[in-house]
Amino acid sequence: MKNSENTYIYGKNSVLEVLLKNPKRLNKIYFQKKIFFDNRLKKINELAFQNKIQINFVNLQKFNDYFDEKPNFQGVVASVSPIEYVELSEFLERDTNKYKKLVLLDGICDPHNLGAIIRTVAAAGFDGVMVSNHRCAPITAVVEKISSGAVNHIPIIKTTSLSASIDLLKKHDFWVIATQMQAKDNYYEIDYTDMNFVLVMGSEGKGISKTILNKADYTVKLKSDFESLNVSAAAAVIIYEAKRQIEIKQKP
Amino acid sequence: MKNSENTYIYGKNSVLEVLLKNPKRLNKIYFQKKIFFDNRLKKINELAFQNKIQINFVNLQKFNDYFDEKPNFQGVVASVSPIEYVELSEFLERDTNKYKKLVLLDGICDPHNLGAIIRTVAAAGFDGVMVSNHRCAPITAVVEKISSGAVNHIPIIKTTSLSASIDLLKKHDFWVIATQMQAKDNYYEIDYTDMNFVLVMGSEGKGISKTILNKADYTVKLKSDFESLNVSAAAAVIIYEAKRQIEIKQKP
Repeated sequence: MKNSENTYIYGKNSVLEVLLKNPKRLNKIYFQKKIFFDNRLKKINELAFQNKIQINFVNLQKFNDYFDEKPNFQGVVASVSPIEYVELSEFLERDTNKYKKLVLLDGICDPHNLGAIIRTVAAAGFDGVMVSNHRCAPITAVVEKISSGAVNHIPIIKTTSLSASIDLLKKHDFWVIATQMQAKDNYYEIDYTDMNFVLVMGSEGKGISKTILNKADYTVKLKSDFESLNVSAAAAVIIYEAKRQIEIKQKP
Repeated sequence: MKNSENTYIYGKNSVLEVLLKNPKRLNKIYFQKKIFFDNRLKKINELAFQNKIQINFVNLQKFNDYFDEKPNFQGVVASVSPIEYVELSEFLERDTNKYKKLVLLDGICDPHNLGAIIRTVAAAGFDGVMVSNHRCAPITAVVEKISSGAVNHIPIIKTTSLSASIDLLKKHDFWVIATQMQAKDNYYEIDYTDMNFVLVMGSEGKGISKTILNKADYTVKLKSDFESLNVSAAAAVIIYEAKRQIEIKQKP
């Protein structure tokens, strides 16, 4: 809840408005502890729940400590993303490259890794990044900065159900490529050309969730002689291997 | 000069001892401003100059602010590296892989990038990293942490003259591969197999210095659709492309 890392909006009406019009921009909602829940706060709570937005309860003292200006926050503050997210369905209708290349980040919470991967995805000319909002607040101002502004350059798709999104992607002829230490194939042993694909990267600690692994068409590994690679380094290696294969194939 | 990022030694004798026995472990020397230079301080100054170690002058007040314990520092403090560096000549005599693969970092000062690249080099099973101590203090405790301990896993070679080191490497049958945005060849269009090589990466701002570019046998580029790639992502991509080529060649 550091002021420098997020953009905040204050007060019942402001929070309610974003919740009604653009709920995907909301990262987290903070209620003042022990406050009386009137109709509007109840409505906020209800909508936050429906949209699977994280809720925290914070002491009045803490609110005052964090927000020096002490605005009239009426017991509710929300951190909003600096960017506009894109709906997966809308993304799929866009007329972009012949074959679409997506990167899906499953539970990658560290803003440095998140920002670094988004920058690499943009650099490689991929079509977008998909993030879930289950485990952590996705795009903050820090992520935007680390990405060198790439969050404004490529579509960022936020999903509340990775599993449903994978199913939708499969219906649209996407192949699902998951990275996993125990995979049989090396990342460079599969063919990334002439197909839509979504490359799934998990966090260094937990890896990719089982539900998603079960839906994968391919699993690939990236060998290391010393611990595992950092996830943003691993993402760069695999993304650029796909780019390399595609460039070579396109050569006259 | 943050206490958390470095290990410090205090006092004339301690600093003099490291300067005489293991000068490469010293990152920086701090003298108290306006202090009288007795023979030992003069000797420290002289040896620091000979070993091209950075010297800073600091107010007594600042010394006291930074070092809460207020040891008897006698007007001199030095930050030392948490690791033991390896001499290039010694490294070249080691009996390691048939072909040696080095990464040379020219002016990469950011501890996150430095640590991330060292971790990737270790993961790829390369033989070592060479850093210069001209532009910035090389291995600090932060770099060690970001590298996930890889600084203790592979040889870190510190050089005071990158140019002389490149000449020595060339004498030992190393090919010099420099990365440069304006290069003609893509990084994947050259053959990394069956040779000793040193891959040179420059900082994102300044790139590789001219002296080194002039000595390069190959220059390669890494294309990006959005600004340039982060240097640690770029290093990961090229290092793993070399590893990929070598693995494929070794396959039965």
